[in-house]
Amino acid sequence: MIGIFDSGVGGLTVAKEVLKHLPEHRIIYFGDTARLPYGTKGSAFVQKYSIKITEWLLKRGAEAIVVACHTSSAWASETLKKKFKDVPIFEMITPAVADALKKTKNKRIGVIGTPGTIKSGAYEKRLLSADPSLKVYAKACPLFVPLVEEGWVSGGVVKEIIKKYLCPLKDKKIDTLILACTHYPLLEKEIKKAVGSKVKIINPAESLAKELKASLKKVSESGPKKSDKDHLFFFSDEPYNLKKISHLCFQKHIEVKVEDPF
Amino acid sequence: MIGIFDSGVGGLTVAKEVLKHLPEHRIIYFGDTARLPYGTKGSAFVQKYSIKITEWLLKRGAEAIVVACHTSSAWASETLKKKFKDVPIFEMITPAVADALKKTKNKRIGVIGTPGTIKSGAYEKRLLSADPSLKVYAKACPLFVPLVEEGWVSGGVVKEIIKKYLCPLKDKKIDTLILACTHYPLLEKEIKKAVGSKVKIINPAESLAKELKASLKKVSESGPKKSDKDHLFFFSDEPYNLKKISHLCFQKHIEVKVEDPF
Repeated sequence: MIGIFDSGVGGLTVAKEVLKHLPEHRIIYFGDTARLPYGTKGSAFVQKYSIKITEWLLKRGAEAIVVACHTSSAWASETLKKKFKDVPIFEMITPAVADALKKTKNKRIGVIGTPGTIKSGAYEKRLLSADPSLKVYAKACPLFVPLVEEGWVSGGVVKEIIKKYLCPLKDKKIDTLILACTHYPLLEKEIKKAVGSKVKIINPAESLAKELKASLKKVSESGPKKSDKDHLFFFSDEPYNLKKISHLCFQKHIEVKVEDPF
Repeated sequence: MIGIFDSGVGGLTVAKEVLKHLPEHRIIYFGDTARLPYGTKGSAFVQKYSIKITEWLLKRGAEAIVVACHTSSAWASETLKKKFKDVPIFEMITPAVADALKKTKNKRIGVIGTPGTIKSGAYEKRLLSADPSLKVYAKACPLFVPLVEEGWVSGGVVKEIIKKYLCPLKDKKIDTLILACTHYPLLEKEIKKAVGSKVKIINPAESLAKELKASLKKVSESGPKKSDKDHLFFFSDEPYNLKKISHLCFQKHIEVKVEDPF
């Protein structure tokens, strides 16, 4: 079973890609809705709860952990890898950075995410340590998450807000853009229009799912998966607008359990 | 000393009104940034942390408590009043409802707030129990908080989003509108434009401060207030964009302490 965690519902876009690329696996998802958003929280807080959640997922039978939250990936994945040495831990940044490096031709890469992810500089550092000749332009887009959670993923206001955030990146002539927040793939269509069709969009959930598929051959499955009901979705508090988000991700409603184990 | 708490920085608009109407008092403010927003959380969660914060404020010397958060006011103030019988506890809803009842002439009142506040139905219930002949139109505006926290309080996008949320209320011919969220007074100028100058806007922070002033004559002050530095501002995690918000509220930067006592 693959354990996936996020600060809330956003990680469902990651669950979607994992299920698409590894349909034979079961997943257990934990969204920390009681403490969301992580994007504006401090690093110590994010580390503390990432450890608690990982412990909880392992206790519930997870054999591999996907840190679906980019802020947790930035601030807690190293801590998790040290603390849980025997567990395969996957995070969003490594595969997305690898994909961006493969895709860029003019070496001008844009990164958009929550204030926490952007402030951590995690993507910038990883990109530049792989290739110091890159130009990386990072931009926090704090309104994207509430837009998606409101179910507003197209239309006038959405276009205008996206333009307001992304014009400065377009002006820098980026040819690759990393969507470094779980919610952003749900805005991908409008983001593409705003930056132009020549800019390659990196959805880290897709990069992660491909890496996971390549690595997970050794992880055993506890019995064959029978139906969608075998997947488990937990939230530490009632998720806001779950119906809209689960329809945007899975085109159907998902059954969830609400409990805060901490 | 007056204890004021909120889920985050929004309650600073309440602190502002309290300091304006009761300049001789000291305040101790607690913003639960580690667990914000309360607006999309469940009622049990909000009650649990409202109790914890009230206990903490009382331990630090608060002699009266202002529940600045509307979600806490809706879901936790009765619990607090029962649990802390000897402490004067003030919440946002009672004075705002009283003011709205005084102001309305056509008996059509609008209420806007976070999904949590609107879902609780607290304002609706209180208004209708005071006058069952009222027509109350409640509307959640989840994008207003992130707009304010981004410092976007005017301009094209803001106007459009406000219009999108408030047109249905305008169509109902309301003559009074309650801003049932701490952040919303910072959008008051644009909200006024959207609903038209004939609609009276109720800022509950102002209603509360007036009620507090009338009631607090008996509460002793521990020594004379000397300077702005006597006010204490605590947050359970680093507040996002504090600089912008404190300038929007106080036209200056405020000194804060970050600690999570829970």
